[in-house]
Amino acid sequence: MIVVMQPTATPTQVAHVVDLIREMGLKDHVIEGTDLTVVAVIGDDRKKDGAKLEQAPGVDRVMKVLQPYKMAARETKRGETTRVTVGADCVFGGRHVPIIAGPCSVEEESKIIEAALAVKSAGAHALRGGAFKPRTNPYSFQGHGEDGLKMLAAARAATGLPIVTEVLTPSDVELVAEYADCLQIGTRNSQNYKLLEACGDQAKPVLLKRGMAMTIDEFLQASEYILAAGNPNVILCERGIRTFEDHTRNTLSLSAVPELHHRTHLPVVIDPSHGTGHARLVPDMARAAIAAGCDGLAIEVHPDPEHALTDGAQSITPQVLNDLMASLQRIAVAVDRTCEPLAAVSG
Amino acid sequence: MIVVMQPTATPTQVAHVVDLIREMGLKDHVIEGTDLTVVAVIGDDRKKDGAKLEQAPGVDRVMKVLQPYKMAARETKRGETTRVTVGADCVFGGRHVPIIAGPCSVEEESKIIEAALAVKSAGAHALRGGAFKPRTNPYSFQGHGEDGLKMLAAARAATGLPIVTEVLTPSDVELVAEYADCLQIGTRNSQNYKLLEACGDQAKPVLLKRGMAMTIDEFLQASEYILAAGNPNVILCERGIRTFEDHTRNTLSLSAVPELHHRTHLPVVIDPSHGTGHARLVPDMARAAIAAGCDGLAIEVHPDPEHALTDGAQSITPQVLNDLMASLQRIAVAVDRTCEPLAAVSG
Amino acid sequence: MIVVMQPTATPTQVAHVVDLIREMGLKDHVIEGTDLTVVAVIGDDRKKDGAKLEQAPGVDRVMKVLQPYKMAARETKRGETTRVTVGADCVFGGRHVPIIAGPCSVEEESKIIEAALAVKSAGAHALRGGAFKPRTNPYSFQGHGEDGLKMLAAARAATGLPIVTEVLTPSDVELVAEYADCLQIGTRNSQNYKLLEACGDQAKPVLLKRGMAMTIDEFLQASEYILAAGNPNVILCERGIRTFEDHTRNTLSLSAVPELHHRTHLPVVIDPSHGTGHARLVPDMARAAIAAGCDGLAIEVHPDPEHALTDGAQSITPQVLNDLMASLQRIAVAVDRTCEPLAAVSG
Amino acid sequence: MIVVMQPTATPTQVAHVVDLIREMGLKDHVIEGTDLTVVAVIGDDRKKDGAKLEQAPGVDRVMKVLQPYKMAARETKRGETTRVTVGADCVFGGRHVPIIAGPCSVEEESKIIEAALAVKSAGAHALRGGAFKPRTNPYSFQGHGEDGLKMLAAARAATGLPIVTEVLTPSDVELVAEYADCLQIGTRNSQNYKLLEACGDQAKPVLLKRGMAMTIDEFLQASEYILAAGNPNVILCERGIRTFEDHTRNTLSLSAVPELHHRTHLPVVIDPSHGTGHARLVPDMARAAIAAGCDGLAIEVHPDPEHALTDGAQSITPQVLNDLMASLQRIAVAVDRTCEPLAAVSG
Repeated sequence: MIVVMQPTATPTQVAHVVDLIREMGLKDHVIEGTDLTVVAVIGDDRKKDGAKLEQAPGVDRVMKVLQPYKMAARETKRGETTRVTVGADCVFGGRHVPIIAGPCSVEEESKIIEAALAVKSAGAHALRGGAFKPRTNPYSFQGHGEDGLKMLAAARAATGLPIVTEVLTPSDVELVAEYADCLQIGTRNSQNYKLLEACGDQAKPVLLKRGMAMTIDEFLQASEYILAAGNPNVILCERGIRTFEDHTRNTLSLSAVPELHHRTHLPVVIDPSHGTGHARLVPDMARAAIAAGCDGLAIEVHPDPEHALTDGAQSITPQVLNDLMASLQRIAVAVDRTCEPLAAVSG
Repeated sequence: MIVVMQPTATPTQVAHVVDLIREMGLKDHVIEGTDLTVVAVIGDDRKKDGAKLEQAPGVDRVMKVLQPYKMAARETKRGETTRVTVGADCVFGGRHVPIIAGPCSVEEESKIIEAALAVKSAGAHALRGGAFKPRTNPYSFQGHGEDGLKMLAAARAATGLPIVTEVLTPSDVELVAEYADCLQIGTRNSQNYKLLEACGDQAKPVLLKRGMAMTIDEFLQASEYILAAGNPNVILCERGIRTFEDHTRNTLSLSAVPELHHRTHLPVVIDPSHGTGHARLVPDMARAAIAAGCDGLAIEVHPDPEHALTDGAQSITPQVLNDLMASLQRIAVAVDRTCEPLAAVSG
Repeated sequence: MIVVMQPTATPTQVAHVVDLIREMGLKDHVIEGTDLTVVAVIGDDRKKDGAKLEQAPGVDRVMKVLQPYKMAARETKRGETTRVTVGADCVFGGRHVPIIAGPCSVEEESKIIEAALAVKSAGAHALRGGAFKPRTNPYSFQGHGEDGLKMLAAARAATGLPIVTEVLTPSDVELVAEYADCLQIGTRNSQNYKLLEACGDQAKPVLLKRGMAMTIDEFLQASEYILAAGNPNVILCERGIRTFEDHTRNTLSLSAVPELHHRTHLPVVIDPSHGTGHARLVPDMARAAIAAGCDGLAIEVHPDPEHALTDGAQSITPQVLNDLMASLQRIAVAVDRTCEPLAAVSG
Repeated sequence: MIVVMQPTATPTQVAHVVDLIREMGLKDHVIEGTDLTVVAVIGDDRKKDGAKLEQAPGVDRVMKVLQPYKMAARETKRGETTRVTVGADCVFGGRHVPIIAGPCSVEEESKIIEAALAVKSAGAHALRGGAFKPRTNPYSFQGHGEDGLKMLAAARAATGLPIVTEVLTPSDVELVAEYADCLQIGTRNSQNYKLLEACGDQAKPVLLKRGMAMTIDEFLQASEYILAAGNPNVILCERGIRTFEDHTRNTLSLSAVPELHHRTHLPVVIDPSHGTGHARLVPDMARAAIAAGCDGLAIEVHPDPEHALTDGAQSITPQVLNDLMASLQRIAVAVDRTCEPLAAVSG
């Protein structure tokens, strides 16, 4: 932490800041510059609300130096990326780049099985689908709940694809974990700390979506909640941030991929469907994501988007996915990765 | 809903869109313009995912026409503002503009009572203070929980001020409602729909903070969750949105006040403390908020901000509040409102 | 400037940073913390591109400490606000808060005179109107150019109101300065540095609008261009920033008022018309702006907004202005200012 | 244009809107829905300020339907991408993806020649370098002006690489066009309409950077200024937008690539250097840009970034560029493009 004094600050004001720092159990280091004085704070100030020093007379502002997360920090793993295994053999964080595909919401058992077979046939490695749906509008379809989870289990049985599905509230975590291979925490719950803790306190991996107004620091602090609660298997997912842009539903910020890799050992997945909101933008953004170095993709696929109950505008068809997989594989190879079908991987 | 066709769309493509609209149980109205064709959709399409029509061949985009909320809409109350009473006589939505004041978090019983006495003496009408704290960083102070609620109750007993305090998760709603006069839903939980529903299913009023990346439409849909669950006593609170600005913690968007009044009958409160993040900006923004027509203020006040456990940088002192109240009263009168002490109001 | 080293930086890397700092003619100060080392840079580094130090091995990031402007800084005037006089007696930066009012663009001589008489009668203190219009769309009405300036001069002759009008390009500065009492630099030209310099090199005051994506630091650096070129009479104008909000054309950031007053001696004007984009939001935001402490307002007023050539949606009528002036006066008094008609001021 | 009436609008109010539409020389089409009435406007309303209809009594809002540009629209060229040739044989918009590389600013003749040789040797196809520099801070290095242009010409003579360099103001256009092979309009001048027009009225191609707060519609309208002034050779350049993100200088919005290709026939270049602000993020974003389908890249390269006068933090070295080119070529091939050296292309 660096406390920047105002150019007009008096020695008494500097001395008072030094006192406050020492009261916090930290050490001070005063540096007198040509224009103003700064006070460097030495010691681990992450548990302190250092911003309050801004209230001391003569202080201009307070700048943080330490990154506010520890377990998520790259250094913790000496530069290696954590490998998170979903289901039997779908690994995020290795050389292979798995593709999670499926409809936004689980509509009927026959339909989700049909979708699962289609995405598997196209080459996807995991199935996504929502049984509990967070909807902006209270009058929209909210998902089938436990029945939807059972339909997902049936789709897994039919295809062997592991299941990634969303959980909305702490009291549902146990139930969802019973059926799912990976719990998804959605963008609107990305700072629902009780939910983060509950997902940290169970055994299944967690796919944590970035909040639509979250900085990278805040994203990693959210992941730290899960890690600190005891679950080391966290996959981070960038899914677009909210900006002034209006040609997309969100602005997909792909620089999050190398930046997260720079700061954390956790694998990073990209969701080009929510990240754009328009099916016609999905293939190019999926290709870009793999070229940027992501560790996986989550793509909305619906056999009949014109009749989807939710998110039809951003769902691609299995046929589009099929064509896309071939080109993703070429891009992956160009960056020394692979995203071929898992049988081929294990074979 | 208006479906805008591409300039190159064929009659067959238009006919297909018409078919999809009729399948949804809605009526179509085709308008051929000079450059392109649009198809207006007639009927209540709020429960439909009309965006999926974007996937139909030849469609350029889909524009919504109906506002996506009903119970929150101003028309519902024929233009009147709902009056929400917190505690015995603190009314939001009337001519009087109540001030909610108090520390960010409840630290100790003696301190919260001291703070409560100080804000009451300064002229505030309700006490705020957090027992359950949502913290970005898992290692930060998280609040005293039920003990904190008991301290708040003691502060109410000592001052008569009603209590506004935050609830973080559905399973705590009953407990918090037992002690609080008004439940606060924080910005990070503003789209935690299970929490919104739980707060809609109990008897105390709810102060709903705007999410930091929420549009006004989304804010009103979040309030609709509470209203639809049976609780008509919702107070909306603008507390700053996230933008590129870096001189404040958030950008306080005061135009939300007249815009919300235009669209909804619910009262609107402004939080200039989170809305700026810096104590020195709070008084001017509090004055501006009342001039803009808000129905209340929520202000962080701490007797000793330099030693506050949380949010010290944005807390003003009781002395600053005292001076501020006098000028707020003058502004209130200038816009035909009042914010004098409640004894004076009832007297 | 503070250079934050990575936790894993070696002593050699720190020594290399120290060398680079000394090469720049600055002094270094190394501080070894518990988790990492920072190097404070002592000396005036404002003319250096210190960010490049980020490229040195082992550096995590570089944080600036000095504010990047000098002549605009509040300290320069020992805390006093600069008074900028437009025309004979319209002073920005004093106790009186002048209102600049008029149509977006000058349409016809009779109409601008009619508008000028109407806003004067309502109590406004200066006339605005565009002769050169920056239009997003090349096919939109671009203004009458010099003819428009002559019409403005006629309106001044008819009313005595000083004229504020926009200049778009350096080669027009001389011409516009011949007719205008104050040159306006629009939001899209706020970082057109050649135009800033040209306006700094002539005698009339300048109203500088904030760019729609400008930070406060960048805004003050833009003003510094004008000041450094020799013109001390700069009025800053906040007119809304671009955010994700869609209920307004821009987000009016009123906290810019106290923040700018904190950092600079230049007077600050608010434009609630562009700041919202909707006439129905203008009166409340005008009131809020004065309560927030602004030194003037710029409001679009058109006698017949339904038939305005430009910006009709955000123009209020003279009748609305007339009613508004009475309430602005009451708010002004509540914050120890005034905005009564100028005759009364001088009387 | 669609005029949405308020739910409470009267038939008289609807009739008044119809009158206003007819006064504008356009045709109306009234559609009565179940909840409210909308009035569709038929005819080319692009030259009208239809937004003013919002002021008519009973109107809720006005929604635009027609895209606000014509010459830039994809339909104009029947779906083909325009090929813009810079210098003798550097073509943007074809199968080959040229790389523009070079330092932010031209510092000395020997250095720019050294840089030019280095980027040519690495495989780049054009040289960038600033002679006229737009600087946020008036005290920063502003470039060498015409001397810098001469140094660029010398670098071209030494390498054969065509020159891309920035022009800041209309009166410099002729001079810059004399030396440059392509004129660059920077992000801060992207809505400097007099400059756009001046660049439209000369013979060299123009690289137009997106404004940091520009929507895609506004970007294309800016390009329309150049096209409408007679210059068909416009290259669009996405260089990052301003958002709340703070880990990068800007947020590089790669979805602009497919979106622009969907809407316009103009070629699209990506600038990953300004788009991130950090050299370590540039290679991954360059790869992602090509995978997203861009028609070219503009990359800052400096032989000694630690000692660059400007933008050192975001410049990569020639060695990094050399390694990057190999992987860009692999990505290009994966998307059926190429970015090999031009000799190889022509050979």
